[in-house]
Amino acid sequence: MQESIEQYMQTVGQQARQASRVLSSASTETKNHALSAIYTALNNSEAAILAANKKDMDKAHSSNLDSALLDRLELTPARFKGMLDGLKDVIGLKDPIGEITDMAYRPSGIQLGKMRVPLGVVGMIYESRPNVTLEAASLALKSGNAIILRGGSEALESNQAIAAAVQHGLKTSGLPETCVQVINTPDRAAVGQLITMSEYVDVIVPRGGKGLIERISNDARVPVIKHLDGNCHVYVEAQADLQKALPIALNAKTHRYGVCNAMETLLVDEKVADEFLPRIAELYAQKQVELRGCKDVQRILGSDVKTASEEDWYEEYLGPILAVKVVSGMDEAIDHINKYGSHHTDAIITENFSLARQFLARVDSSSVMINASTRFADGFEYGLGAEIGISTDKIHARGPVGLEGLTSQKWVVFGDGQIRQ
Amino acid sequence: MQESIEQYMQTVGQQARQASRVLSSASTETKNHALSAIYTALNNSEAAILAANKKDMDKAHSSNLDSALLDRLELTPARFKGMLDGLKDVIGLKDPIGEITDMAYRPSGIQLGKMRVPLGVVGMIYESRPNVTLEAASLALKSGNAIILRGGSEALESNQAIAAAVQHGLKTSGLPETCVQVINTPDRAAVGQLITMSEYVDVIVPRGGKGLIERISNDARVPVIKHLDGNCHVYVEAQADLQKALPIALNAKTHRYGVCNAMETLLVDEKVADEFLPRIAELYAQKQVELRGCKDVQRILGSDVKTASEEDWYEEYLGPILAVKVVSGMDEAIDHINKYGSHHTDAIITENFSLARQFLARVDSSSVMINASTRFADGFEYGLGAEIGISTDKIHARGPVGLEGLTSQKWVVFGDGQIRQ
Repeated sequence: MQESIEQYMQTVGQQARQASRVLSSASTETKNHALSAIYTALNNSEAAILAANKKDMDKAHSSNLDSALLDRLELTPARFKGMLDGLKDVIGLKDPIGEITDMAYRPSGIQLGKMRVPLGVVGMIYESRPNVTLEAASLALKSGNAIILRGGSEALESNQAIAAAVQHGLKTSGLPETCVQVINTPDRAAVGQLITMSEYVDVIVPRGGKGLIERISNDARVPVIKHLDGNCHVYVEAQADLQKALPIALNAKTHRYGVCNAMETLLVDEKVADEFLPRIAELYAQKQVELRGCKDVQRILGSDVKTASEEDWYEEYLGPILAVKVVSGMDEAIDHINKYGSHHTDAIITENFSLARQFLARVDSSSVMINASTRFADGFEYGLGAEIGISTDKIHARGPVGLEGLTSQKWVVFGDGQIRQ
Repeated sequence: MQESIEQYMQTVGQQARQASRVLSSASTETKNHALSAIYTALNNSEAAILAANKKDMDKAHSSNLDSALLDRLELTPARFKGMLDGLKDVIGLKDPIGEITDMAYRPSGIQLGKMRVPLGVVGMIYESRPNVTLEAASLALKSGNAIILRGGSEALESNQAIAAAVQHGLKTSGLPETCVQVINTPDRAAVGQLITMSEYVDVIVPRGGKGLIERISNDARVPVIKHLDGNCHVYVEAQADLQKALPIALNAKTHRYGVCNAMETLLVDEKVADEFLPRIAELYAQKQVELRGCKDVQRILGSDVKTASEEDWYEEYLGPILAVKVVSGMDEAIDHINKYGSHHTDAIITENFSLARQFLARVDSSSVMINASTRFADGFEYGLGAEIGISTDKIHARGPVGLEGLTSQKWVVFGDGQIRQ
């Protein structure tokens, strides 16, 4: 069995590589035509896809999977429509491929520039949500990449049904069906193969819990665009305008809890702590946010605030809990953020120009903000059109990753007979 | 012993990470001041460094190392001067760090842009040439990165002597000496540690033979900017201007043999083969270049041309040997290049606009050229000022890599109290 999975994955990889050669030079028109054909095919398969999802849901119910997972797994007619709307958005996105920039003459007489090209083959590994199947497939196609999809075993029927419609659409458009392949086995050995076939796969994009992503990163032989955790900070500096600090600190924590760009630790300068903390604590109390504070916070807010442990400073709560610390100034705030944070998104609230400038230079995070809520760190808010994920890496892509994250640039040289002297 | 190397490398890693925090926000002035202090220190240590190199050379002679390696290992007074000149060039380079680009307002009212930042800690692994120690250290410092250097054991004395001068320079400038660290043990376990300490090292840059680089890439847990081989092609298309094709084909092969951007296979369209091949063969004969051809080449040039085997199409000769193939047209040429090539640099010679445009889109190489010699694929010819290496990867950096290859970009957001709606 093990060997046949290896053979199966080798075949999948080879087919993806071949398909990517066709897709990489396909015109924008061809790619959009294929995406439209997929739209039609999905529309015609709604009943079949929802029926397949029903099977997955029934199985998940009888396996007693938890309610959060059941919620992510379910495809309602409304979600199905949302999925198709997302596809329409991708059709409307600008095609990044083929763009030539920075074309300039060199002293030798050659003209040198950079051309944007697809990465080649993308491997996507994700859990439960079947709409990721279409989202990932459409972004890959738009950016000229073949894609191999490995969803969770609990969503196998749904993913296969979506993939069947996608492949039907590809077929009618003349592009190889193997541009999009869904792994048809729940065997974990398939993932092991996928993340090590560096001859066939150019990048792995995992979506899921931190555990999954760490496992994949550790075992991969292919570059991984990884999104680990989001332990984001807001630092209310001594010269903060509290009329800005209060709504930002409230928004960053309570706008949505289960998201990676939510604030998890609030840092407050000792010079404004006595004034600021009671006011923000009142707002958090209205939203039932639990505070865990350092000794100074407890002194100011009272001892019914829980004590923050060392672990709390590292924690990504993803819920209505907030760690709060009083700091002596910029240096302590920045040291805290660079040590305990996850280099995702951190903000300073201050009216002091020089301190803002220092914060910008010294905080080592994928998004650094001045007087704005961490919740803005998002592909749509950043105007990327679509979001492949949010990268916590520094290599290749950092922060919110749009279509460009699935592309690379090659050098192009135009000459009329130049030789090297 | 094994354990103590692990401890030693952990300490080196921690120190590098700490140093990188200081260095990442050091001003251009501070960094250039440190580089100037290093220049002075090296100048004052010339005798000591050349004496250390003499020790390495003596040892290498008595170990019967081959003459090519001895040549790379040797530091003559002229080479020492060249090394210092290179350092001066780095001082003159534009500091890439801190540059903010694409700053624009978003509909939410935030102002969004990208700021160029150092990667953090660079691990450099290289062989024999001791001048790489200074070159790598100076490029890392200029781009705000701490660096850990692991040279070949045959150059240990030379590298330690250069490092001592570098650290002396750092000390007088006020930057941490641990910005540049040279591994002081020849034990290979140190490399194994270096390429897996992902908490302390952000990128590995190997320089050396393909074997070394493949080994490192396979075992690394840290991203690697790798340069494998350069199997470059020139395709003389049917509508080529032979007055351009002849000098380019000659230059690409014979300008220098042992370099990665030299042509290794010449592809000639069957419609011009009868005219072009005898003329270029005559030029190659004057340079004693050995030809290995397909049947058609042998038919045209005579049977004393050796037969090219399947392996020849994959080969990077790095010497006066050239594989030559007659192809039926664009499709066969592109398929050949994408299959046998190393995705380094490939050129088409043609006057046909549409075919040139197709070649540009369909050849999957880090540099694609029209009517120019492959020898132009070079950091200096491309105007990058300095060259960290040439990447054959698609992720992060592709083709000639300058200072920018040691940097990343973070998002910066300016607001005046914006919260997410």
